[in-house]
Amino acid sequence: MKKNALISETFQWKDLHNHAKDVKKLHLKNLLQDPERTDAFFAEHSGIFFDYARQNATKETLKKLFALADAANLTQKIQAMFAGEVINTTEKRAVLHTALRANSDAVIHYNGQNVVPDVQKVLTQIASFSEKIRNEKHLGATGLPLTNVVAIGIGGSYLGPEFVAEALRTAPKQIKNASGRRLRFLANIDPVDVTRALDELDPENTLVIIISKTFSTAETILNAKTVRAWLCDNIKAPNDEIVRTHMIAISTNIKAATSFGIHSKNIFGFWDWVGGRYSVSSAVGMLPIALQYGMKTVHDFLAGARDIDTHFKTAVFSENLPVLMGLFGIWNSSFLDRPARAILPYTQALHKLSPHVQQVDMESNGKRVSSEGQLLDFQAGEINFGEPGTNGQHSFYQLIHQGRVIPCDFIGFIKSQQERKIEGELVSNHDELMANFFAQPDALAYGKDEATLRKEAVSEELIPHKVFEGNRPSSSLLLSELNAFTIGQLLALYEHRTAVQGFIWGLNSFDQWGVELGKNLAKKVRSQIHKTRTKQASIVDFNKSTTRLLQRYLDPSDR
Amino acid sequence: MKKNALISETFQWKDLHNHAKDVKKLHLKNLLQDPERTDAFFAEHSGIFFDYARQNATKETLKKLFALADAANLTQKIQAMFAGEVINTTEKRAVLHTALRANSDAVIHYNGQNVVPDVQKVLTQIASFSEKIRNEKHLGATGLPLTNVVAIGIGGSYLGPEFVAEALRTAPKQIKNASGRRLRFLANIDPVDVTRALDELDPENTLVIIISKTFSTAETILNAKTVRAWLCDNIKAPNDEIVRTHMIAISTNIKAATSFGIHSKNIFGFWDWVGGRYSVSSAVGMLPIALQYGMKTVHDFLAGARDIDTHFKTAVFSENLPVLMGLFGIWNSSFLDRPARAILPYTQALHKLSPHVQQVDMESNGKRVSSEGQLLDFQAGEINFGEPGTNGQHSFYQLIHQGRVIPCDFIGFIKSQQERKIEGELVSNHDELMANFFAQPDALAYGKDEATLRKEAVSEELIPHKVFEGNRPSSSLLLSELNAFTIGQLLALYEHRTAVQGFIWGLNSFDQWGVELGKNLAKKVRSQIHKTRTKQASIVDFNKSTTRLLQRYLDPSDR
Repeated sequence: MKKNALISETFQWKDLHNHAKDVKKLHLKNLLQDPERTDAFFAEHSGIFFDYARQNATKETLKKLFALADAANLTQKIQAMFAGEVINTTEKRAVLHTALRANSDAVIHYNGQNVVPDVQKVLTQIASFSEKIRNEKHLGATGLPLTNVVAIGIGGSYLGPEFVAEALRTAPKQIKNASGRRLRFLANIDPVDVTRALDELDPENTLVIIISKTFSTAETILNAKTVRAWLCDNIKAPNDEIVRTHMIAISTNIKAATSFGIHSKNIFGFWDWVGGRYSVSSAVGMLPIALQYGMKTVHDFLAGARDIDTHFKTAVFSENLPVLMGLFGIWNSSFLDRPARAILPYTQALHKLSPHVQQVDMESNGKRVSSEGQLLDFQAGEINFGEPGTNGQHSFYQLIHQGRVIPCDFIGFIKSQQERKIEGELVSNHDELMANFFAQPDALAYGKDEATLRKEAVSEELIPHKVFEGNRPSSSLLLSELNAFTIGQLLALYEHRTAVQGFIWGLNSFDQWGVELGKNLAKKVRSQIHKTRTKQASIVDFNKSTTRLLQRYLDPSDR
Repeated sequence: MKKNALISETFQWKDLHNHAKDVKKLHLKNLLQDPERTDAFFAEHSGIFFDYARQNATKETLKKLFALADAANLTQKIQAMFAGEVINTTEKRAVLHTALRANSDAVIHYNGQNVVPDVQKVLTQIASFSEKIRNEKHLGATGLPLTNVVAIGIGGSYLGPEFVAEALRTAPKQIKNASGRRLRFLANIDPVDVTRALDELDPENTLVIIISKTFSTAETILNAKTVRAWLCDNIKAPNDEIVRTHMIAISTNIKAATSFGIHSKNIFGFWDWVGGRYSVSSAVGMLPIALQYGMKTVHDFLAGARDIDTHFKTAVFSENLPVLMGLFGIWNSSFLDRPARAILPYTQALHKLSPHVQQVDMESNGKRVSSEGQLLDFQAGEINFGEPGTNGQHSFYQLIHQGRVIPCDFIGFIKSQQERKIEGELVSNHDELMANFFAQPDALAYGKDEATLRKEAVSEELIPHKVFEGNRPSSSLLLSELNAFTIGQLLALYEHRTAVQGFIWGLNSFDQWGVELGKNLAKKVRSQIHKTRTKQASIVDFNKSTTRLLQRYLDPSDR
C-alpha cells in the first residue's frame, strides 16, 4: 500500500505552526475592532448565523487554513464520502449516513447498487409500523395499546436518539404528538439502569426495541433478555406471543433476532455503511422518534440533516459551516494547543447534545495512526464536554474565564420552545436566557483589566483576583428555533465537523479499534468471576492489584 | 500583605519536574510487575479500597509528592480549614462545610462562637418540617398532601443535591422511603426547563423550595416567580395562602424571602462559611433529601461524609484517600501535562456524579492567581468530565485508549442496588458490569503491542490500527455498596480532593470571581433587549459581531 505523507509533513502545516506564534501575540479585544474582519468571520446558511469573529485568528489564518484543507484534499474526500467510496479503509466500508436522508429520487451507488430505494423501504416500514402502534392497530398481548417504548441500545444506538428525543420533548407541536406516550432509553449493562428505565411502566403497555447491528452487543442483549423476563413475568399470555407483540429489533442479524423470538416483519434493517455513531438518521434513531412523535417529525428531521448535507457538499469553504467549524477545531487543537472544547447550548432541551457530540467526535478522531497506519506525530482528537447554559455558568465557566483556555461553541435560538413572561419583569424568560448567550462570548473575548477595576474602585488586594485576561475563543451559532428541522441541521453540522477534522488530520474517523481490548479483557474477568463464584476457583493470571480487587469483590463474606 | 513564594519556586516542585522526565520513560506494564510497589500503592479506609498502582509513578514519586505537600504546608492548611480559620481570604470567610456534618457534641468556633448548635438547630427544623410533609400534617392550600417537591436552585444549589438524590433513587430502602413521592430540580433560567420540571405535576400536590443564599440569584428568583405564577394560576385559593403553604426557602436573606411571601418559619438558614458548591450537607441538599427519603437517610449521609472528614483530618498522607487523590491530580496535571481527567462510576445511579465534581473542581481550582494574588506560572485546575461505565466505553473511551492520555477514576461497588440474574447466563448483570470495571484499568495500563497482534494473526495492514500503547494511568475505588453512607463518603472524598490540590497549588479554592464579568455583561444585554423590544431603540455600544447577532435576534419579522 502506498503511504501518503502525513499532513504534518506538508508546507501548509509548518506554515500554520509559524503563523500561530504570531497570532498568539494578538488579543481579541483588538481583533474585534476591525469591522472588515468581523464581516469576513461570519457565514449564514438557511437561517443559521455562524459567527466566528471571536476565534484567535486573522484573515491570514483563514487563508492558511483553507490552504491546509486543500493540501489534505478535503474537497475530494468530502465528495468521496458522499459518493460511497470505501473511505473506511480498515473495515473496508463506505460511509454513507448521508444516504439515509437523501432525497427519495437520489441515486447513490454502492457496490454497483443504488442504496436509496433500500433506505426508502425501511422508512416506509417505519411509517407503517409506527402508525399501527400510534393508531392502536398493533396491540399488546393482552389487547392493550402500546403507549410506552423502551429503546435498548448503547453508544451510537443510544446517545444520538436520546439527544433528538429530548430536544423535541418540549416543542409544543411534539408535546401534542407525544400525548399519552412515553419513550425511555436503556443503555447501561448496570441492572440499576433497568430499574430506572422501567420505573412506573406497565409491561402490558410497553413496546421494546432492541437496537444492535450485530444483535450481539453484550450490554444490549443482556438488557433485552432482562426486559424480556420482565415482560413475560408480568403479562398473562404465552411467552412467545408476548415477545412477538412487545419486542421488535433494529438489526442486520435477522437470524439472531428471530431466534430471540422477534417476528421477522418487525426487524428493521440498516447497512454496514452506517457506522454506529452516525446511525441516528437510520431506523436506530428514526423508529423511536416515529413512535413517539410521528412520521412528519421524522421527515422534518431528515430534511434538516439533508439541508446541511447539501450545503456541506456544495458550499465553498468560506461559507461552509461544517468546514469552518472543523477548521477551527484543527486550528485550536493542533496549532494553539487547546486539547479540549466545550459545547454550550443555551437551552435545556439540548442537554443531551454534548454527550452525543462527545461520542461522535472522541470515538471518531481519538486515534493514534493515519488512515494508512502511520503513527501520527501530533495529537489528534479533542476532549469534548459541555452542559447547557446558563447551568454551566454556575459550574465550570469559572475555569474557562480565569483558568485554562477552552474554545467554546455557543448555540442559541431566536424563539423559545416555551415562551414565558412574568408580569413586572423587564424581559421574557427566554430573553433573560439569551442575554447570557450574547454576553458570555464577549466576556471571554475582552476580559477585564486592572485599569478598569481601579476605575471601579476595587481594592488593590482584590484586583488580581478580579482580572480576566480575556482573549478566549468561541464561535456563536444562532438559529431560529429548536424544532425537528433544526435538530436535524445540528446533528449533521456536528457529524460533518468531525469528518472535516478527520479528513484533514488524515485519519480514519469511521473505525473504532480502541474499544476492542477492554472488551476482550472483560471476557477474561467474567470467566474468572464465574469460576470463583460457582467453584471457588482461586484468582489466577491477573496482576497483584487486580487480584486484590477481585478477591475483595468475590469475598463471600461481603455478599 | 506579605506574599508567600509560589509553590513552583520551591525545590520540591522543580525536583518533581526533573523526576517526571524519568518517570515518563517507564511503562506501567513493567511497573505493575513489582509486587512491593503494588502493595505500597494501595490504601484502605472504612471499607473503601483505593488502588493507585496504575498511576505513572514510582515509590520515589510518592515520597517527592509528600515532600511537596509538606512544602505547601498541606497539613496545616487542612487543620486551618477544619478549625474555622478565614482561609477564603478574598471573601474573608471561613470554610466550614465540614461543620455541617460534625458530631452534635463537637465544638467548632468561628468568630468566637460555636457553630455546631446552629447546624443542629437547622437539622432539627429540617426533621420537623420534612416529617410534617411526609406525615401529611402540613398540607397544601386545598388540603391535599404535598407529595411532589420542586427544588429551584442553580450551580451549587442544584448539582450536588441532584447527584445525591439520583444516587439514592434506586436503592431498595430508598424506593420504599420515596414511595408515592417525586423530587424534581429546576435550575436553568431557560423557560424550557420549567416545562420539563413541572411535567405531569399537579400544583395542588406540589411543594416548592427556593434555594438561594442571597435570594437574588437571577435564575432562581425568575424561576421561583414563574413557578409561583403556575401555582397561583392553577390552585383555587388565595394567592398569599398558596405561597405560604406551597413555597419554602433555603436562604440567609430572610427579609427578601418573607417579602416574596414565604412564611418566616419555613425559611431554612445557612451561613457565609458554606460555599455554594460545598453546600450539599447543609439544608441545600439535606432538606430535599429529607423530604424525599426521610431523616434517617440524611443522618446516614452526613455520617458517611463525617467519616471521610475525620479520616482526612487525621490519617497520615500515605493512608489518606483525599490527599492521595489530590496529589495524583497535581502529579498528572502539573508534571505529566495531563490537563483533563475522567470520572467513571460503574453504576448508572451515579450519572450525576461527574457534573457535580465538574463544578466542585473546576469552579474551585480554575484560577489564575495565588491566594495572595500573584500570577501563577503554571496551569492550575483540571478539566473534569465523565459518564457512567459501561456507557462511556461505547463513547469517548476510544480516545482514552488510543488518543490523548486522560487519567481516570474508576469507581465500582461490590453489591448492586438492584441485583438481577438471567437464567442461563454465566454471571449476574452486576458481575457483567463489574467485569468491565476490572478489565478497563488493565487494558489502559498494559495496552497491546505489535508482537501480540502478530501472534493473533492480525493482518499487517491492520496492526498499527489495533496497537494500544498502554501506559495510561487510572485509580480504582472499590466500595461495598451505594447507599446514603457511601454517597456521603464519595461527596467528601471529592470535595477534599479539590481542597488538597488548591492548598498545594496555593490558590483560593473557595472564591469564584470568574463568574462576575459575564453576569454584568448580561445585564447590559438585557437592558438593550428591553429597550429595543419596547421602544425600538437601536443597538448601541456593542461590537459589530454582537450587534449583528442582536439585530437578528431582535428582528420583529422573526418572531
